[in-house]
Amino acid sequence: MSSQPSESSQPSQTWSQRFESALHPAIAQFNASIGFDIELIEYDLTGSQAHAKMLAKTGIISEAEGEQLVTGLEQIRQEYRAGQFQPGVDAEDVHFAVERRLTEITGDVGKKLHTARSRNDQVGTDTRLYLRSQIQDIQQQLREFQTVLLDLAQQHVRTLIPGYTHLQRAQPISLAHHLLAYFEMAQRDWTRLGEIYQRVNVSPLGSGALAGTTFPIDRHYAAELLEFGGLYENSLDGVSDRDFAIEFLCAASLIMVHLSRLSEEVIFWASQEFSFVALKDSCATGSSIMPQKKNPDVPELVRGKTGRVFGHLQGMLVLMKGLPLAYNKDLQEDKEALFDAVKTVRACLEAMTILFREGLEFKTTRLNQAVSEDFSNATDVADYLAAKGVPFRVAYNLVGKVVRSCLAENKLLKDLSLTEWQELHPAFEEDIYEAIAPVQVVAARNSFGGTGFEQVERAIASAKQRLG
Amino acid sequence: MSSQPSESSQPSQTWSQRFESALHPAIAQFNASIGFDIELIEYDLTGSQAHAKMLAKTGIISEAEGEQLVTGLEQIRQEYRAGQFQPGVDAEDVHFAVERRLTEITGDVGKKLHTARSRNDQVGTDTRLYLRSQIQDIQQQLREFQTVLLDLAQQHVRTLIPGYTHLQRAQPISLAHHLLAYFEMAQRDWTRLGEIYQRVNVSPLGSGALAGTTFPIDRHYAAELLEFGGLYENSLDGVSDRDFAIEFLCAASLIMVHLSRLSEEVIFWASQEFSFVALKDSCATGSSIMPQKKNPDVPELVRGKTGRVFGHLQGMLVLMKGLPLAYNKDLQEDKEALFDAVKTVRACLEAMTILFREGLEFKTTRLNQAVSEDFSNATDVADYLAAKGVPFRVAYNLVGKVVRSCLAENKLLKDLSLTEWQELHPAFEEDIYEAIAPVQVVAARNSFGGTGFEQVERAIASAKQRLG
Amino acid sequence: MSSQPSESSQPSQTWSQRFESALHPAIAQFNASIGFDIELIEYDLTGSQAHAKMLAKTGIISEAEGEQLVTGLEQIRQEYRAGQFQPGVDAEDVHFAVERRLTEITGDVGKKLHTARSRNDQVGTDTRLYLRSQIQDIQQQLREFQTVLLDLAQQHVRTLIPGYTHLQRAQPISLAHHLLAYFEMAQRDWTRLGEIYQRVNVSPLGSGALAGTTFPIDRHYAAELLEFGGLYENSLDGVSDRDFAIEFLCAASLIMVHLSRLSEEVIFWASQEFSFVALKDSCATGSSIMPQKKNPDVPELVRGKTGRVFGHLQGMLVLMKGLPLAYNKDLQEDKEALFDAVKTVRACLEAMTILFREGLEFKTTRLNQAVSEDFSNATDVADYLAAKGVPFRVAYNLVGKVVRSCLAENKLLKDLSLTEWQELHPAFEEDIYEAIAPVQVVAARNSFGGTGFEQVERAIASAKQRLG
Amino acid sequence: MSSQPSESSQPSQTWSQRFESALHPAIAQFNASIGFDIELIEYDLTGSQAHAKMLAKTGIISEAEGEQLVTGLEQIRQEYRAGQFQPGVDAEDVHFAVERRLTEITGDVGKKLHTARSRNDQVGTDTRLYLRSQIQDIQQQLREFQTVLLDLAQQHVRTLIPGYTHLQRAQPISLAHHLLAYFEMAQRDWTRLGEIYQRVNVSPLGSGALAGTTFPIDRHYAAELLEFGGLYENSLDGVSDRDFAIEFLCAASLIMVHLSRLSEEVIFWASQEFSFVALKDSCATGSSIMPQKKNPDVPELVRGKTGRVFGHLQGMLVLMKGLPLAYNKDLQEDKEALFDAVKTVRACLEAMTILFREGLEFKTTRLNQAVSEDFSNATDVADYLAAKGVPFRVAYNLVGKVVRSCLAENKLLKDLSLTEWQELHPAFEEDIYEAIAPVQVVAARNSFGGTGFEQVERAIASAKQRLG
Repeated sequence: MSSQPSESSQPSQTWSQRFESALHPAIAQFNASIGFDIELIEYDLTGSQAHAKMLAKTGIISEAEGEQLVTGLEQIRQEYRAGQFQPGVDAEDVHFAVERRLTEITGDVGKKLHTARSRNDQVGTDTRLYLRSQIQDIQQQLREFQTVLLDLAQQHVRTLIPGYTHLQRAQPISLAHHLLAYFEMAQRDWTRLGEIYQRVNVSPLGSGALAGTTFPIDRHYAAELLEFGGLYENSLDGVSDRDFAIEFLCAASLIMVHLSRLSEEVIFWASQEFSFVALKDSCATGSSIMPQKKNPDVPELVRGKTGRVFGHLQGMLVLMKGLPLAYNKDLQEDKEALFDAVKTVRACLEAMTILFREGLEFKTTRLNQAVSEDFSNATDVADYLAAKGVPFRVAYNLVGKVVRSCLAENKLLKDLSLTEWQELHPAFEEDIYEAIAPVQVVAARNSFGGTGFEQVERAIASAKQRLG
Repeated sequence: MSSQPSESSQPSQTWSQRFESALHPAIAQFNASIGFDIELIEYDLTGSQAHAKMLAKTGIISEAEGEQLVTGLEQIRQEYRAGQFQPGVDAEDVHFAVERRLTEITGDVGKKLHTARSRNDQVGTDTRLYLRSQIQDIQQQLREFQTVLLDLAQQHVRTLIPGYTHLQRAQPISLAHHLLAYFEMAQRDWTRLGEIYQRVNVSPLGSGALAGTTFPIDRHYAAELLEFGGLYENSLDGVSDRDFAIEFLCAASLIMVHLSRLSEEVIFWASQEFSFVALKDSCATGSSIMPQKKNPDVPELVRGKTGRVFGHLQGMLVLMKGLPLAYNKDLQEDKEALFDAVKTVRACLEAMTILFREGLEFKTTRLNQAVSEDFSNATDVADYLAAKGVPFRVAYNLVGKVVRSCLAENKLLKDLSLTEWQELHPAFEEDIYEAIAPVQVVAARNSFGGTGFEQVERAIASAKQRLG
Repeated sequence: MSSQPSESSQPSQTWSQRFESALHPAIAQFNASIGFDIELIEYDLTGSQAHAKMLAKTGIISEAEGEQLVTGLEQIRQEYRAGQFQPGVDAEDVHFAVERRLTEITGDVGKKLHTARSRNDQVGTDTRLYLRSQIQDIQQQLREFQTVLLDLAQQHVRTLIPGYTHLQRAQPISLAHHLLAYFEMAQRDWTRLGEIYQRVNVSPLGSGALAGTTFPIDRHYAAELLEFGGLYENSLDGVSDRDFAIEFLCAASLIMVHLSRLSEEVIFWASQEFSFVALKDSCATGSSIMPQKKNPDVPELVRGKTGRVFGHLQGMLVLMKGLPLAYNKDLQEDKEALFDAVKTVRACLEAMTILFREGLEFKTTRLNQAVSEDFSNATDVADYLAAKGVPFRVAYNLVGKVVRSCLAENKLLKDLSLTEWQELHPAFEEDIYEAIAPVQVVAARNSFGGTGFEQVERAIASAKQRLG
Repeated sequence: MSSQPSESSQPSQTWSQRFESALHPAIAQFNASIGFDIELIEYDLTGSQAHAKMLAKTGIISEAEGEQLVTGLEQIRQEYRAGQFQPGVDAEDVHFAVERRLTEITGDVGKKLHTARSRNDQVGTDTRLYLRSQIQDIQQQLREFQTVLLDLAQQHVRTLIPGYTHLQRAQPISLAHHLLAYFEMAQRDWTRLGEIYQRVNVSPLGSGALAGTTFPIDRHYAAELLEFGGLYENSLDGVSDRDFAIEFLCAASLIMVHLSRLSEEVIFWASQEFSFVALKDSCATGSSIMPQKKNPDVPELVRGKTGRVFGHLQGMLVLMKGLPLAYNKDLQEDKEALFDAVKTVRACLEAMTILFREGLEFKTTRLNQAVSEDFSNATDVADYLAAKGVPFRVAYNLVGKVVRSCLAENKLLKDLSLTEWQELHPAFEEDIYEAIAPVQVVAARNSFGGTGFEQVERAIASAKQRLG
């Protein structure tokens, strides 16, 4: 593309000779990706350095030329970091921008960099280098988030909180147990990213435009320099595969599912009705007109950003649907979605980590009290009877009846006198009161993975071990 | 939010007194929308000017104060256009940025602007003003695109092109007829946007935070100043409705569906196998390593961008799912998707309009020849016999048999001798050759809306009339 | 397709002569749509009757033949309703199934039905007839839902409920006002469906396979018989347009957005923490093991079904992306999504209407009490001072400080003594207590569309009028 | 739920005592899942048998009771397989239907089956048993598809086909190389499913309603009986996790991406313009009115079904967004999407396997000829010169110019005389003709993973080895 498309009737120098006239300036603008693919520049430079070294090692260029290229690329890296290299839309994309600058720096040697390479395998390489780095960072963020959850869990083993199904109080649980459920989700996220990493970390470099190259390249050597774990076996696949991006977007969507669930809970918990947590000023905002307001912006925004990541996943799937082999320009659209999803997931993980580390406080008094004021111990009454030999379904039905009459009289189960209990069923004895005390109710659910305190301690130990 | 959140232990001046300490800087960054909602600034200024005039008219502020506010806001507009007003992340959002600057300009009067208004109704107003303007521009672009299609259609009434079903040649058609199918799609797009406009063009201003206001405002007057077509009837709905954005994204997705279909066809047509169009240099690009390549980047990129818009639609739906009344911070996420969808649709419409206006040429010789070299006139043989009294299903089966034997002998129907025809069925006469000539085949499909030339001329006249 | 594909080496009679061997049975199964398009049978029969009448009117077939066809089709309708017509997979699709049965009934005349028609325009006609009928039914359901909301609103004008932003209590509102917000959403849904109806109610019949037909058909007459509002202007567009289905799915998605929001609120309201509504036994379910549970299954399921409808919208968009003209087999996939979305939206509207009509009760005592126990009257304190001449931002900051100290002392604003008020600011007088009483707080928000009781009465009158 | 909800004022026996009146019949219908979850019945029976054995082993029930339960459940399995067990909507869901029938068979013992279990962990167990089985079947189908591709590849190592980028002919390639690209995609699909299997194959059984159970169950034993690879560590997570379903839907979407890409290519290839493949009658269909048509329905339908699977993925993500812990009724919606995605992917894999095994034939003569009639050897001319010492960019530009003049003269590169070549550049010699012969062009791209025949042979060997 001409560097001044609007002023020139000359076509671009890069693919000029088959073309007689220049691109329409609006079309040049439409096609250009430099506005966003500049994000890849450091990976592009690293990839090109490895390519140059490979060309030198295989004798396709001389050792001296190889060194010139590597040094020139390093100079561009320094210029970029110093803010001195800022290519405009006339550069079309980051790859041309770099090649052009390299030729300015190294002269004709720069023109040899693109030997035995195409932008198709080059951009695939860059994107994978970018994404594998981001995956590692996100995994690290997940670890920090898990650590924060685990720390909180350790503080709250004996803090009780209502456990819900259908947002109805079901059975009281340990707050630690609740928090550890999110630890488990994050653990799956971490594991999943690790598996996807294996499929991201595969080198397409050397696939050429689509068919490989006639030059005696050494793809394994270049891949080794870039620390790739493997190579694409098929050059057509190498330039047109975007599975790795879709897989990542799915993993990112799952992270957002988990964070959105936790966000929804925090929003409930911070409501006056629940009053389970207090938000600290450092992680809440006010209203421009209502002086009393203290809003849980962080979890709301995280919840809101969920759709954005789902949308990117959908967009990328749509992009790939029905695309014939091999490279098509459509694929240029993979990048912005990927970049924004990475940015969004990272920002949300950071914000939620801060929120749970220092932005909210569980109101333990309120929580422990809450579990005493409902019928979430009803199952335990049925279990109590069942343990005394009453068939479970009989016991269950009896308790249902009791609950109904308590509701009518505005009483809780603990308010019933022993006489009342015994009128209901002679098997009731004094120990019924202990059996339905929330702490006991929680402690008793000691099956593997349950909320019983022993189990929660075990789970904490297991979590610690997995964090390493 | 503090204007320098990282250096200050003081909370923001805007909602400070209930808050003791400042936002965590990372959270301030996370919450801030100024990075993208600056796009709304001109609409925000216009909206605020109308609000100020209404406050003055109703006596909530004095006439003089109203004038000061209007003038101050106009000054900010000039500063913005001159590049002198560039609020940073400390401004949180465009609304605070403007209010702060206004207070610098007008002193305490500026603090009165936000009387009887909340950011919740304010941002809703801004977004609607923005979107209604964009809708009008997109409608105008659709008109230009339709005009280009219509011009082309007028040139190609008698250019024949194979008509396909299942991408198999079915019946020859007029190229004009083919192009006019896209005219009709664009016509629906235009109409649909007009209807959505009615639901976008409704004023939420005066809904307050959620419940209206105690001030004696005149919502109708403010709406009139802003040329809104109506008012939200319910303040809760006014601050939390985003139907209009979703509807727009659906209409935008449909535009992309249509453009992607046309793009797919151009990509086929430009292939060597079809060779139905030649791309001009101004709208095509080359390869960095294959000197012969001339790539249809524009339609590929349009096709690729389709997923992006679908993704935004999905993201916005996800955003709204299950959101309780009234305003929630999640809603901040509506803007970037909307802005990007608008930008994408406008760029794609512009690029496709340029492509069809000056970027490709139909190869009429090739096209007219193509329709002579297939069996897409087979239906007409069956119709010929049917017209001579042979039952259609009998005729249909006979023709199927003929096609099969022609294929075996590598012949076309026109290559059969009259003797051969008459051996197949005695009803065939010399006029069979005319009946199966492509021009006649096309001309004969003269039912309303069909490809017959008369019909196509009628359709062109109808299209012209609808363009106005 | 052979009617017994697995036993026969003979190809199908319908398109046999060009084909030598039969479909692979697994492929026959894969291609067949009879399993779901039987849903269209009544529309198919109606459409075919109109087509037959048109053929007779235009002399393409005789009057007697036309009558035989119409009568034969009516017989199939009766057989179908009586459960006697149940075509199997060998019928491929509903159109072939009907044509085959018609030929059994009427002999060779039946074979004339398909004259001047293709399955491509036929199925498009059927689908539109189906959808326009469903749209009318859904509009009727929306009216019933609105009526239920309006009835409830009328009962609860003076029932107060906390109004929320960010799920934090913001300002008290009238429960009627809250319910009417959903009335407005349903009103938009109703209007939107009415507009889409106009684009659904357009006849593609007579578009033929793609290009129109050589027969002298009268498309306008057939359209009139079927009460279509207009005709497709372009035959290619007529057979390949699915905009109407996508538009409907978007409208259906918006209905689900609205129902999901209301569902989320009911789920909150039914929680022990909120206790704003009591679910009646007729619309709630229990737990298999927890005897005290009473679960809000209806709103949960409605919320859950939201994703399903969004998914169908996305699926249909993906289906259409990049599809070349004209008909492609892909389009067969439009039906199941459409049918399921219709079924889902209708079931959800019905369930929510029942829920609000007879399945829940607002706990008015609790609600009226709730608004007395928070700081949602804080804005009114600021307004009180502002009305006494204190600049709003000064007043706002002062109130923020008061809230903070009240929170520290576990007091509400109404608990402050007049002395305490006056220490804060000398402008406070005895009437501050009235000013911050919830009823007054609500009543005072009397701006157009606000929650003030006058406004709510006005809104109810407006709603009644719109319901007609 | 009452078994005849419409006739009874009695509430359901299952959770009756807290409830006074029965479900509204329309709500009963709305809530019921038996219409689709009957698909899980065999897994439900297997899961219940393991649960019963565990209860007996741990002494929660007696050995004799355990045996009665296992035998009773087996009887239900036989009844179901014989078509004798067909529960209606009154059964609410498959779990209640089985429990009810079991109680009919075994009397009161049947009522003990549900001890220490909830439907929440039960349905999670069933779904995982179902999905892990389906994953194994899909993996097997992928293997068959890969085998078919590999067989074809082996036959077509030396069949040349144009290689495309941007759907423009780029470089000729081996047809085997092209087919093997899809082998690689399927290989990733297979691997990915294997990894997801690990996260599907985890037992939630024993998580109870949400918090574990007070009974001394042995979750490890039950998991072992069901051959699960592990257990959920946290009971809240156990009942509310649907990551595994979303991951599967993402993997299913990727399979559809790959099949849709191949489908698009087959549709092109089968067009008259490409004429690269001939469809056999067993895998193609005709037209109801155009006797010459032979349509590629299979790949069209596969391409069309792609959106359906994407839609299910999106629907499930939406379902999970913002759902608080633990079980919510929304989760009931996970099943239909999962079942339909499984069914769709399996049907598409089967159809495409049949298509490539026996439904199409590559036209090798046409293919080999095609690659001789374009400029896709242009890169090789540049390489030829580069190998003779001409700088690549100079060579590249020269070739661009040659292509342009050839196009103007309607010539191909092979048509140039040696004199003409040498006028262009003196370095050309007689061997240029061999260098640009398609076979040589393909053979020369012998870099690892390239299309050179040696590489293709290597790739075939590698593929064979991976198939095992």
